[in-house]
Amino acid sequence: MALIVQKFGGTSVGSVERIEQVADKVKAFREAGNDLVIVLSAMSGETNRLIDLAKQISDQPLARELDVIVSTGEQVTIGLLSMALNKRGVPAVSYTGSQVRILTDSSHTKARILQIDDQKIRADLKAGRVVVVAGFQGVDENGNITTLGRGGSDTTGVALAAALKADECQIYTDVDGVYTTDPRVVAKAQRLEKITFEEMLEMASLGSKVLQIRAVEFAGKYNVPLRVLHSFKEGPGTLITIDEEESMEQPIISGIAFNRDEAKLTIRGVPDIPGVAFKILGPISAANIEVDMIVQNVAHDNTTDFTFTVHRNDYQAAFEVLEHTSRAIGAREVVGDTNIAKVSIVGVGMRSHAGVASRMFESLAKENINILMISTSEIKVSVVIEEKYLELAVRSLHTAFDLDAPARQGE
Amino acid sequence: MALIVQKFGGTSVGSVERIEQVADKVKAFREAGNDLVIVLSAMSGETNRLIDLAKQISDQPLARELDVIVSTGEQVTIGLLSMALNKRGVPAVSYTGSQVRILTDSSHTKARILQIDDQKIRADLKAGRVVVVAGFQGVDENGNITTLGRGGSDTTGVALAAALKADECQIYTDVDGVYTTDPRVVAKAQRLEKITFEEMLEMASLGSKVLQIRAVEFAGKYNVPLRVLHSFKEGPGTLITIDEEESMEQPIISGIAFNRDEAKLTIRGVPDIPGVAFKILGPISAANIEVDMIVQNVAHDNTTDFTFTVHRNDYQAAFEVLEHTSRAIGAREVVGDTNIAKVSIVGVGMRSHAGVASRMFESLAKENINILMISTSEIKVSVVIEEKYLELAVRSLHTAFDLDAPARQGE
Repeated sequence: MALIVQKFGGTSVGSVERIEQVADKVKAFREAGNDLVIVLSAMSGETNRLIDLAKQISDQPLARELDVIVSTGEQVTIGLLSMALNKRGVPAVSYTGSQVRILTDSSHTKARILQIDDQKIRADLKAGRVVVVAGFQGVDENGNITTLGRGGSDTTGVALAAALKADECQIYTDVDGVYTTDPRVVAKAQRLEKITFEEMLEMASLGSKVLQIRAVEFAGKYNVPLRVLHSFKEGPGTLITIDEEESMEQPIISGIAFNRDEAKLTIRGVPDIPGVAFKILGPISAANIEVDMIVQNVAHDNTTDFTFTVHRNDYQAAFEVLEHTSRAIGAREVVGDTNIAKVSIVGVGMRSHAGVASRMFESLAKENINILMISTSEIKVSVVIEEKYLELAVRSLHTAFDLDAPARQGE
Repeated sequence: MALIVQKFGGTSVGSVERIEQVADKVKAFREAGNDLVIVLSAMSGETNRLIDLAKQISDQPLARELDVIVSTGEQVTIGLLSMALNKRGVPAVSYTGSQVRILTDSSHTKARILQIDDQKIRADLKAGRVVVVAGFQGVDENGNITTLGRGGSDTTGVALAAALKADECQIYTDVDGVYTTDPRVVAKAQRLEKITFEEMLEMASLGSKVLQIRAVEFAGKYNVPLRVLHSFKEGPGTLITIDEEESMEQPIISGIAFNRDEAKLTIRGVPDIPGVAFKILGPISAANIEVDMIVQNVAHDNTTDFTFTVHRNDYQAAFEVLEHTSRAIGAREVVGDTNIAKVSIVGVGMRSHAGVASRMFESLAKENINILMISTSEIKVSVVIEEKYLELAVRSLHTAFDLDAPARQGE
C-alpha cells in the first residue's frame, strides 16, 4: 500500500463536472489500496476574479488582505471535492492550509513554507479517510493567512509529500508528461518516461511550463519522486526523480527547450577596465530588469563588446538605460535585436560525454544557422539564433541527438 | 470615546462601490473618536451561489464541507473592506471567525456560539486599528469551520458586542428603523425611537423581518443595546434596549405586526377525553410541520373543536395528516382555510393596562371584521381574521392605539 499525494490544478477542478471526474479518479486510486492526500487549486478563473475584486478597491491591494481574499478559492474546491468523495462512499475530510497547519513565513502573496504539521493528516489516513488539502496557502506564526504565490499548489503538493514521506507526488495537468521538446514544433517529440530534477529545472526555466520551478527545486531538495500526468487521460506520465543509475542506454540529451521571449542588447566598444560589467548591469538591475544570458568576449584594442538578453517586454526600457550607461562610460554604441530565439539542449548525460556542444554546433552549421550567442552550464548548452530559424534548429537537434520517436524504435 | 460594534448586511457590501461607501462611513465614525469592530456578511447573492455549487454535487451536501465552502463569502468581504479602510489611511485588520476564535459547538450550518476570545481584538483596538470580522462563522474545538445559519451575522455582531462589553451594537440594514407597523400598509406608520427586546422579539417573529430573532434574544440575554439603522441614509434608527423606566408617556402599544403566511385547520367533533390534543398534534409534529396558534374551546355534548394554524406551505400536508387522525380518533370532520391573516398588537405597556384586548376587539367590530381565532401573551394579542380585511384591520388598530404619526404630533 502506497501513500500518494495527488495535486489537481485549476482546469482539473474548473467545474462541478470536472470535480466529479476527479472524485471518480480518486475513488479508483483509493480502491486500489492507496492512502491518498489530494491537493487542489482554485477553480480556473476564480483566483483572477478575486484579484480583480481587490484591484477594484486598490491598485496596490494590501498583501495581508489580498491573501485573506484569494485563499478562499481553494477553500471552495476542497469542500466540493470532499463532498463528492463522501457521496461516493469514500470517507474524506478537507483542510485549509491553516487547518493542516502549513506554517509559512509572513511574506504575504509569496510566502515560503517553514514547517508542516502532519499530525491531523496522519490520524485521518489511519482512520481510512482521504485528506483533501487547499493548495497555495498557509498560515504564519501569528495566525495570519498567507499564500505561496502563483503555482504554489504544486509546492504545497511536494511539501506535503516530503513531510509525509509519501511514495510519490503526482501532479495532474493538461499534458500527459514531459516531452523531449514541444510536440507542436517537432511532431516526432516523445514523452519521457523519466527525467532528473536537474534536467526538469533546466527544461522548466527554459519555457516548458509543465511544472513550477519552485516545486521541482523543493522535490529535488527533499528527494520526493514527482510524476507529471494528464488529469483525464490514462498513462504513466513522466517521473521526475534523482539520477539513480547512469545506465548505458541513457540518452546523452533528455530534451530540447526553447523560448522566443527574449531580446538581446549589445554595448560595443566598452573600455576594457575592471568593474565595467557592474557599471553596465548595475543600472539594468536597479531598473528591475532581469537579465538572462550574459556574454563578454576577450578584448581587442583595449575595448570589448558586452552582450546580454532580457525579456522582450523589458527591451525598450533596457535599451534606454544602456544608452545612458554608454555615454557615461565612453562606449561606442548600443545595438539590439528582438528577433531572436534561444535553443537549449539539456541532459545529465552530457556530464560524462565530451563533444556534445560541438555536435550541437555542427548540426546547426549544416543547416546554415548562425549562432549569435552561446552559454553553457554543466547539463545544458544554450545558443541564441535568429528567430526565423527556431523550428528548423529544434527539429535538426532533435534528430541529431537521437530523440525522434520512430528512429529510436528502429535502433 | 465609545466602543461600537457595527454590522453591515449583504446588500450593504453587495458591490465594490457599496464597500467603498461603508468604508467612508466607518472612517467618519473612527474620526469621531470611536473604537470600532465591524462585522460583515457576504456580498448579496454570494452565499446562494456557493450553496448552489454544493447542491450541484449533492442534494444533501455534507454539513461540515458546506461550512468550509459557504464561510468563504464573508472572508472575501472582510478582506475588501479592510483594504478600503487602509487605502483611506484608517488602519484596519480583518479576521475570520476562526482567527478571532469565535468558538462554537460542532452543529455545522447551525452552530451556536460558546465563547469569544477577545484578546486579539482588544490588542488591535488598543493599537488604534479598526477590526473587521467575518460574520456568520466560527470554529469548533477541533478547528473545524462552522457557520451559524442564515442571519447569523447579526448574532456575531451581538455576541462580539457582549464579549467586548461594547457601548452599542449597530445593525445596518435597508430600512431606517423599526416601525409601528409596515409603512406599505399604513402610510402613517412611524419609526420608533425605542423598543424593548421583548417587543422586538414579538414583532420579529410576526413578520417584521428587520432583525434575526436569535440576535435579539442574544442581545436581550446579555443586555447589549442594539440599534437598527439604514446603511446609507442618515438618521438615529431605532434603539432596542431593556425597559429601563416605564415613563408616563410610554404608549401602551408599540406596534402592530401581521402576516399572511399562515393557514388554519380545524378538526370538528373531537371526543373530549384526556390526551386528545397530543393525538392530534403528535402526528403533525412527526411530519415536521410547525404549528403556530392553537385554540381549543370548552366542550359541549362531550365533543370539542380543535383549531391551529400552520405555514401555508404546509397546509396540504397538514390537512392529509389531520384527516388520517380524524378517522383514527372518531372525530366528525376536518375543515381548513388558507385565506386568513394574523394581526397582533405588541407592547410592554399592556402589562399594566387593562382593557387592551377589548379595545382591539371593539376597533375591529366597528369595521365589521369577524375574529376567527384569538391568542394572547403577556405583551401581545393576536387575532386571525379573513385575509381580505387585513389592511383595514391594521389601519384601524394603528389609529385606535394612537400610533398614527400626525395625530400624535398634534396631541
